[in-house]
Order: sequence, then C-alpha cells, then structure tokens
Amino acid sequence: MPGMPAPATVFPELPASLLSALRAKLGEEHVSTREEDLLACSRDMWPRSLIRQRAGAIEHPPAAVVWPGDEAQVAEVVRLAGAHGAPVVPFGAGSGVCGGTLPVRGGLILDLKRLDRILALDERDRLLEVEVGVMGEVLERELVRRGFSLGHFPSSILCSTVGGWLAGRSAGQCSSRFGKIEDIVRSLRWVDAAGRVRETCLRPCGVSPGSLDALLLGSEGTLGVLTSARLAVWPLARERWLRAFRFPDVDAGLRAMAGMLRAGLRPSVLRLYDEFDTLLARSGKDDAGDPRESLSASLPALALPARALLARSLPMVLRAPRLLNRVTGLLPTGCLLVVIVEGGLAGGQAWRLAAERIPALCVREGASDAGEGPALHWWKNRYAISYKQSGLFSAGAFVDTMEVAATWDRLPRLYRAVRKALEPLAFVMAHFSHAYREGGSIYFTFAGAAEDDAGAAVLYDRIWDAAQAVVLSAGATVSHHHGVGFSKARYLVRQLGPAQALAEHLKASLDPAGSMNPGKLGLGGGGAGEAHHGQAR
Amino acid sequence: MPGMPAPATVFPELPASLLSALRAKLGEEHVSTREEDLLACSRDMWPRSLIRQRAGAIEHPPAAVVWPGDEAQVAEVVRLAGAHGAPVVPFGAGSGVCGGTLPVRGGLILDLKRLDRILALDERDRLLEVEVGVMGEVLERELVRRGFSLGHFPSSILCSTVGGWLAGRSAGQCSSRFGKIEDIVRSLRWVDAAGRVRETCLRPCGVSPGSLDALLLGSEGTLGVLTSARLAVWPLARERWLRAFRFPDVDAGLRAMAGMLRAGLRPSVLRLYDEFDTLLARSGKDDAGDPRESLSASLPALALPARALLARSLPMVLRAPRLLNRVTGLLPTGCLLVVIVEGGLAGGQAWRLAAERIPALCVREGASDAGEGPALHWWKNRYAISYKQSGLFSAGAFVDTMEVAATWDRLPRLYRAVRKALEPLAFVMAHFSHAYREGGSIYFTFAGAAEDDAGAAVLYDRIWDAAQAVVLSAGATVSHHHGVGFSKARYLVRQLGPAQALAEHLKASLDPAGSMNPGKLGLGGGGAGEAHHGQAR
Repeated sequence: MPGMPAPATVFPELPASLLSALRAKLGEEHVSTREEDLLACSRDMWPRSLIRQRAGAIEHPPAAVVWPGDEAQVAEVVRLAGAHGAPVVPFGAGSGVCGGTLPVRGGLILDLKRLDRILALDERDRLLEVEVGVMGEVLERELVRRGFSLGHFPSSILCSTVGGWLAGRSAGQCSSRFGKIEDIVRSLRWVDAAGRVRETCLRPCGVSPGSLDALLLGSEGTLGVLTSARLAVWPLARERWLRAFRFPDVDAGLRAMAGMLRAGLRPSVLRLYDEFDTLLARSGKDDAGDPRESLSASLPALALPARALLARSLPMVLRAPRLLNRVTGLLPTGCLLVVIVEGGLAGGQAWRLAAERIPALCVREGASDAGEGPALHWWKNRYAISYKQSGLFSAGAFVDTMEVAATWDRLPRLYRAVRKALEPLAFVMAHFSHAYREGGSIYFTFAGAAEDDAGAAVLYDRIWDAAQAVVLSAGATVSHHHGVGFSKARYLVRQLGPAQALAEHLKASLDPAGSMNPGKLGLGGGGAGEAHHGQAR
Repeated sequence: MPGMPAPATVFPELPASLLSALRAKLGEEHVSTREEDLLACSRDMWPRSLIRQRAGAIEHPPAAVVWPGDEAQVAEVVRLAGAHGAPVVPFGAGSGVCGGTLPVRGGLILDLKRLDRILALDERDRLLEVEVGVMGEVLERELVRRGFSLGHFPSSILCSTVGGWLAGRSAGQCSSRFGKIEDIVRSLRWVDAAGRVRETCLRPCGVSPGSLDALLLGSEGTLGVLTSARLAVWPLARERWLRAFRFPDVDAGLRAMAGMLRAGLRPSVLRLYDEFDTLLARSGKDDAGDPRESLSASLPALALPARALLARSLPMVLRAPRLLNRVTGLLPTGCLLVVIVEGGLAGGQAWRLAAERIPALCVREGASDAGEGPALHWWKNRYAISYKQSGLFSAGAFVDTMEVAATWDRLPRLYRAVRKALEPLAFVMAHFSHAYREGGSIYFTFAGAAEDDAGAAVLYDRIWDAAQAVVLSAGATVSHHHGVGFSKARYLVRQLGPAQALAEHLKASLDPAGSMNPGKLGLGGGGAGEAHHGQAR
C-alpha cells in the first residue's frame, strides 16, 4: 500500500552543502529528508507504481523534498540545485497517472503547494492570475463566490493543481465548451533551468517560432518550473439543460456527437458511454436522494453485473477477462449519452436553441430519450469515479485508464481495435467524453488481475503495449489529457518520429544540464520510458 | 518602379552543376536565370523596397527562380540546393509587406505557385486538403461552388496564397468569428531542410513539446517548406446582418467592441475606424450603384479632405504631417464601427440574438446608429483598399501599415502613444479590425513623403523605429498578422528577449546549414534585421 517502505529501499543522497544552503534559504521546516516525506513523493497515482508498492518496492524515492514559499524561492532552489548538479522534479498534488513526478534520477522534489495565491481577478477583462500550487476545487470555489468560473473541471479537481493541469495539458469535463487548459491559459510565468524568472506574452500573441507557450504547455516540468499563469474565466452559467439518450451502439452515438459539433453546437458536457461503461456509469454514489433518478428502475439488468463488478470476488472474475467481456457484451444496456447545455455565456437564449436541436439529432441516429435522470445523476457524482479505484487495488486487482484522441473518421475503428486487443487481457470499457469539431477522445478503462503482484506488473505492461501498438498504427495520439510522463514516454517517441529529435534539441537548449525532471517525455535519456520494464521482471 | 533594373545591379551566381541538376529534375522551362524573372522576385510589397526600387536600387536579387510541380520536386530542389550550399527562399504570390521573401543571401527562389491543387474536400468532416500554392480567391471561389467557405478573407486574398497565410500567421477580415489561419489549420505537410517530406499530426493533437504545428506556423520558410495543409471549412452563412455605428471617439468604440467579445458574441466582422481612418473608409470604389449608400450625404465634411488626400498634391501635403494630422483631427467625423453578423453556423437563430444585443451595447457607449449603408459599402469594397497604394508611390510619396496586438486594457494607451510618436513624421490613421475576448489588434496606416527617395527611405526607417519603440515599451506584439520577415526582425528579437536564443536553437536543429530563407525573423544572422539600415544611407 502507499507509503509502506520496502526493506531494500535505497534513498539517494544530496551534498550536505546543498541541503544546508536550501535550509538557509527556505527555512528548516521547508526542506525535508525524512523518510515519510521521501516515500510520499516516491510515487504518483500511476497504477504501476501502486502495484509495485503493494509488493513493497519503492523504486524512485527522491533525496529531499522542498517547499518554496514564492516564485523567488523557486528560482533560488533551481539555481542551488543546478550549481550542485541535482535533478529538480516539480510536484503539485501528486495525482498524475503517468509517473510524471517520479524522481527517476533522484534529486529534489520541488513541491509547489505553498504557491497557492490568487494574485488577481480582473472581472472586466475576465482574466485570472493565479499561482500554480492552488488546488483546483479551492480555486473554482473562490471564483464561484465572486460570480465566475474557470470552466475547467477535470475529475481530479479535488486532488490536482493549476500547475499540474498546465504541465500535462489537462482537459476538464466541459472541454467541448471551454476547451482544454491550453485553450484557457493566456500567459505563463516560469523559472527556467538557469533559475531566471520568465514570462510568456499575453495573448493575443505575436508571431514567432520562439513563442514559448505551446512548448511549456505539456512539457511536464522538463523545460522549467511554472510558477503562475493568467487564465480566462467566465461568468457563471445562468441556465443548465440536462438530458440523457440511449443509443443502440457506439457508432450511432458517435455520429450524433459529431453531428452536434459539426452543426456548431457546443454543449458543456457530451459523454457517450459504451455498453460496458454504461453499466459502470450507474455505479456512482448512492443517489436515493434524487427522486428523478430512474435508470436503475428502467433497466434492472444493470444492477447485478454492476454490483458483481464491485464485489470482493472481483480479482477472480477479472482473471477470466475474455469471458467477462463476452458476458457483459450480451447485456441489452445500449450506450448512454449524457448532454448538458449551459446558458448565459453566448448571451440571450442561444443555449435554448442548442437544447432544442440536440434531441432531434439524437433521435435521427436511433436514440431513445432517457430523460433528465441519468444526466442529473452523472452531474451529482461527476467527481466520484476517480475515488473508486483504491478498492480494486486493495482487493489485489488493478485498474487504469487510457485516453487517446483521433478524428471522427478514425474513432469507431480505433475503439474496436483497442477493445479487441485488450479483451483477452483485461475487462475493458470506454467512454467518449471530449468532443471537438474534428474529432474527440476515447477514454478506456481496463481492470485486470494476476496471481501475484509480479504477474500483475507484467500483465499491466502487456496491456499497455498492446493498446498503444493499436493506437500508434491507427494514427491516434498516445495521450489526450493525462499527459505522457514516464509511463508513455516510449510511445510518444514513436508517435513523434523525427520530431522527437527536435524535442531533444529544445530540451538541450532550455536545460543544458538535463536537470529539469529528467527521464520524462522520453527526454534526458530516451531509455527512461523503457526502464521500468526491466524492473518488472 | 517595380522591375526597373538598376545599372549597378549585381546578380548572385550559382554553381552550373546545381543549375543543370535542377533543369534535369524540373525541366528547362521550370528553372530560370533570366533577368526579368530574377528582378520580379527581388522584392515583395515591402514599401521600403518599393521606395528603393523607385530609386533604381535592386538590393536583393536571387540567383535563380525554380517552379517545382509537386511535393516530390520541392523535396528534390531542397536536397540539391542543400548539397550545393545554396539558400532556398520559398515564394508564394509575393504580396508580403515585410520583405519575408527577399533573397538577402542570394540563392534560389522556390516559387510554389504550381502546387495549386485542391487535394480533397471531406464535406462530412468539413476538412479541406489543399496545396500551398493555390491563390486565396481561387480557393474560396471553388469552396463556395461546393457550398463551403474557409472563413479566411485577408484583404490580400486576390494576391496571396495558402502557403503565405500559413507561413506568416495571416488573419482574415472575419477573424473574430473564424480565428486566424493558425486556428483554421488542422495539419501541415512540409519538406524539412534535409529534403525529407514530413507531416504534423492532425488535431486533436497529442501533448508533447515536440509538436511542430505551433513552430511551423509563422516560421516564414526559415524551418522548411510547407507543401500542403488540412484546413477546417464551414458551410456558407445563410443570413448576414450588416450595421454601422458612429462613436464619439475611439475609446467608446473600443469599450463597445470589448463588451461584445466579453459577452461571448462573435460577429464575423468588427471594424472600428479612428477619426482619420473614418475619412478614408469612405474612399472605397465608387458606390453610386448603391442607393442605400448614405454617409457622404449625411456628413458632407468628409468629402473634401478625402478627395484632397487622394489628389496629386499629396506629396506636398504629406511633407507637413503635423499640420495635416491636426487639421484632420478637428473634423467632426466621429469613429465608424462596421459590424457584420453571419448566421447558419451555430444553428438556429443564434445569429439573430447577437444582432439584437449589439445595437444596445453600442448605444450604451454613446454611439448613433448609422444604418446598413456604410457596412454594405465596406462589404462591397472590402478588397479594394490594398490596391490604392500604388498611386501614392507613383506620386512620389509612400504609405505603409503596421498591425500590432495588445490586450483591451492596453489598446487605448497604445493607440494614442503610437499616434503621438508618428504625428511629426507622417499622416497617420488606424482601425481596429481583429477583436478577441482578451484584446485585439490596431492597424495603423501612415503616409509620408520626403524631398527625394533617399530621404524617403531615411524617413521610412525613422517612422518604423519610433512606432516600434512605443509598441515594445507598451508590451504589445510587434506584428499581429503581416508577419515579421526581414523588416521587423530587429523588433521581434527585442520582443522575444531570452526566447530568441531558443528560436536560434530551433533554427539550428531544423536547419543546421542555415539555408532555409536565411536572415528572416532575425534567424541566421541576427544582424539581418539591421542590414537594410546601412543601405538606406
């Protein structure tokens, strides 16, 4: 379990001179080499490290953890670490799922949580200036109090920071309406590898191949440390229209989604669940409190398998994934589409017009109207799902998600090909939750189990390699919004092809010493992405 | 005048072996060293080269011009030129205004006009695949024939290519609705400096600091040669609402524009003219044919100065710019705002709601409704203005434009500061024609004259240095959509600051030999941007 030290754990060391210099600058209490702090930062939520830690293996502990209090102290830490050749790994809330904050070369964990100030909110220009360490839900709550919203709602909002969103190109549940974080950001302040504070120009930006925004977004700390950002905010939605539809299959649902986007409609939420995920979509927090909740009643077939999947017998069931996938596939659940349209942004009653057109678009593709209930249920439990996974781990199984993106024409084939590749290995389900005019993402969830943790790690790697082989051959992107980090580095390198050489040049030019979060995105030793394979066996 | 050779003109040379190899690959008729071809490619529409050529100086002739017929031949040309160390300058329609295609290091002009095929139009996914050499108006006409539009209407549409738009981050007259070309493009095919054909991934794009789209857009041929692109297209607008408003001053007009964007309204056209430009806005093609045309009648004061400005006496008048600016400033013209809202994209009657809200927003800021006439007049003459400048040059004067961008809070101050800096040097006017939620661009037009062409070149440089000094200190961008090229390189270098080092690294990594359009964007010899100064004196 998280935090359990392995007897064999070897902690890297740092020069005493560096530690004392850091303590002098940040204060004793903001520099730690205590084992509990090092262990806490030796993993993120990458399921593979959870599997390994369940087996007692702590593979990537840092040498120290520091908590700078402001941008100047961040710059100081980077300068001191650089002078001593120590790696620096920026750290937010530690909820990443790709090993992006694993200190794979040791060194310092630079925890940014003390940089949690809301620096300014220009209500007229609707421009927020905020430090990177603020937690998402805390920020949104404060904005709402002042009549605004960031429009960015990742399901991790309770355990992720603004900096993590920017570093990994996060997408929120309303991305079809507000875009991903890279569409919301207006400028960045950051500390480069030399410890200089820098700022990108506020959009509307000038032309130049040297403009850094596009490079820093998604750079996952490999080019420098983000310290604050200016973000666009919106007035609170004044109206909200919720509706669910049930489609005969995924293809019909995707046609309806594409139709809405092609027609220029921009629902805030547009989520299509495949037959398997439609089962799980019902297993949110108990919603007895909601009289309008109706799906369980209308489709009793859903109740049993859903409960079975969450029962203690799960690991055994999961060890026969092919059978489980087959059986579940036979259930007449259909594919649920949740649509939420919000008003008040585009002015007037524009939202109402969108709401009027959507049912027709769905019915034309063979959907039946499932009413407001399932959509309202999703809305009420929209942040709950992420917290259901720990049960699976403690039961001895594992679960992970893979979010990839492709154009509309490629999505159905990609969906089926990944399913086919994973069916013998894991119980797999998917939903389509980020739709754009030209395409969207598929969010696969797969659950597996093996006879022991070593076997689980091997199976886990087989699942990812099989799935990403399909993704790469289908011309899809290896990640849509979880980032790349450590776990997907070797897939990204293949996706980029010749462009990876450019990424290496960029890295070398901005971080000559290679000390900024080394080994991520396949940078600073392309082999990093492969490394954990060896460790599994 | 364009094309007149100077006795002193020295044409650079290329190895005979390169020329014969090119002729063997492209065919005799597609490789030229004829003086008329070299002269035609020794300038673009950068007013300063026009001034210099009027004085008989041909400063940057190429050694040869080649016309490859397809992507493979482009790659062949780049490989051959690379093997002989010859610079390669990609060339579209030659209508750039920043010297972006001047062969300042000699070498080859790579004219892409034969790559003019529309490769595919996916009407369902609304995705156009087109080669870079197609002329804008030709492409749009074909799209309209098939019921679509690119939504990209630069005033140069009759004399610019898709490749030029992408290379310089072009903005069209409907950018507030459709975005700039970088918002419209979905993927790029290009030939790198090694002569390899490459393609960027189709959006929705994966995360990675190696993603090339953002770097190639606006790279002006310094990183490689774009060959084709996939672009988003839209169904034709079904409704169009045109209206003009007259504001007491620029600040009031800007408040109204910002108000529309902040309210989430997205007019296709939103153009605010300052008092001076409001005069000129009336001097489009004769519109006697339009009975609804009414402004001249309603404001007779406009007629005289407008005509005076276009008379033969212009150069003399322009040599007293301070007086001219003062006098014109006293005219009670007000500031004209042209608004056009198009329907049919967002579905339903959403456009009508926008049209309903806009008049109220304008009146609240003190505007009077000027009816449909002036807007319709602008619409009918929207491509005419670019072709009025040649008269000024042949009359011995010069005119140029400077388009910069800033956030709403900075725009009014920036506008006044640039005016103040230029008033003693040139007759200056401006309009605000690209508005975004967080800000917009100012499009300055300035006309000047000196006793002779040498004096004109000196004055021209003083004007630009004075204006850009203000732009840089105001935190605005040196260019919004004309690009940087040769003429603004030294300003861009100052704007980028430390980021320029990164641009140099990028250039070095993608073009180690420095042969791709050298001397542009301050790349391949940062001094290039300064070079033409020496030549002026």
